[in-house]
Amino acid sequence: VTTPRFHAPLAGTGLARVQLPAHEVHHLRDVLRLSRGAAVRVFDGRGREWAARVEQVDRHAAAVLLDAEIQPVAEPPAPVTLGLAILKADFMEEALRDAAMVGVSAIQPLIAARTVVGVRTADADRLTARWQRIVLASIKQCGRAVVPAVHGPESAGAWMAMQRDATQLKLLLSEPAMTAAAGAPAPIVWRRGRADGALLVSGPEGGWTASEFDTARAAGFIPWTISPRVLRADAAPAIALSLLFYEWERNLDS
Amino acid sequence: VTTPRFHAPLAGTGLARVQLPAHEVHHLRDVLRLSRGAAVRVFDGRGREWAARVEQVDRHAAAVLLDAEIQPVAEPPAPVTLGLAILKADFMEEALRDAAMVGVSAIQPLIAARTVVGVRTADADRLTARWQRIVLASIKQCGRAVVPAVHGPESAGAWMAMQRDATQLKLLLSEPAMTAAAGAPAPIVWRRGRADGALLVSGPEGGWTASEFDTARAAGFIPWTISPRVLRADAAPAIALSLLFYEWERNLDS
Repeated sequence: VTTPRFHAPLAGTGLARVQLPAHEVHHLRDVLRLSRGAAVRVFDGRGREWAARVEQVDRHAAAVLLDAEIQPVAEPPAPVTLGLAILKADFMEEALRDAAMVGVSAIQPLIAARTVVGVRTADADRLTARWQRIVLASIKQCGRAVVPAVHGPESAGAWMAMQRDATQLKLLLSEPAMTAAAGAPAPIVWRRGRADGALLVSGPEGGWTASEFDTARAAGFIPWTISPRVLRADAAPAIALSLLFYEWERNLDS
Repeated sequence: VTTPRFHAPLAGTGLARVQLPAHEVHHLRDVLRLSRGAAVRVFDGRGREWAARVEQVDRHAAAVLLDAEIQPVAEPPAPVTLGLAILKADFMEEALRDAAMVGVSAIQPLIAARTVVGVRTADADRLTARWQRIVLASIKQCGRAVVPAVHGPESAGAWMAMQRDATQLKLLLSEPAMTAAAGAPAPIVWRRGRADGALLVSGPEGGWTASEFDTARAAGFIPWTISPRVLRADAAPAIALSLLFYEWERNLDS
């Protein structure tokens, strides 16, 4: 059994005793039922991690005493921001959880033309908070000490158009027929862009419209078809991220 | 909206009019509510696909008339059999669904030392039938015309030991610490084995025991750690398969 891990944003600020945020208190006390003296690990969400011990648990708060700093699991060699078209609830949860697990740096939820979930302005904050909780839960499980940022939803077309001047490798996951029709090269240029990282954009269940595809192309996104077989929208982002990171990490080794 | 696809094992045997199996009748009639004249596609599960039209639907049966044969989506350049440690129900479903989607050829469910699901002999046939249904549903969605075989469960250790004389590339997904302790090389030898395909084995939620790891090594399996980050057992197989197929397919292109 692995040592339970908690997000402690105040760790690393010089204090030996650190309070946990409210949602972490709940997990520690009500879910895992840990008490004073239990061995845990805490991470600051920015890449540092410590062995720690529960020092206090009560109705409203929990605090830990930091022990030795630990070498956290390696982060990818370069950051990737995922532009993720909003999916139906369960699929969105899978996509977020798996993207966080494999090593994404930040997630920009996107409202695409074929997004089937209605995202009203009034819901945006509540949805974003929910997505952040899903990402944090995944990070606690997969051993990363970095919590990827999850931004509030934006229009897919407008957001992609705004990336025109971004210098990173820009990739648009797209269906085989769309990529072929655009005359885009089949073998991907993924060795490029390691230094700056990449922007990777993944579409909704029904795929991109021709207009979104053209907007992305005009902003410098390269259409990327991972497989001749059709990948579900919830599974494609983590597979694409894994391909990028695997290639980048392998090149570091050799 | 894409044309609905059905598995018609009797297609390709020379008949122009083909009956659908019972579970496909249910999907066609009760779920999609198609009637006589509806345009569909059918695939034989062995790699061939046709445009077709519903010719008859009644309480007990459905039949289609085959039209032109269609070029199906490309299969991977070489077959991979996935030895998949049995996971909790939802996670097993995700692992099967995603492995089928990305292109696995066959799946061997394995009972590992840390498999938490009890698999009684009396349940094996029922479980296997359920796994086969999950795989078929995924195949219908992802456009493949090949239905991967799903075998009945076997003991992980015994099955891996039996693969000693197999000539394919043999890969064992394993945790970073286990791979490092075995002194296995970090950069994977995945370019090997394309001609023969590969055997890929994926462990349970709690990982392999030292004894299982040793058995696998003795049978010629190479430990493979995809990522320094910890991948959940339900997500790892599809990511590993995607890495293999992507590399193999890219090498065909160039």
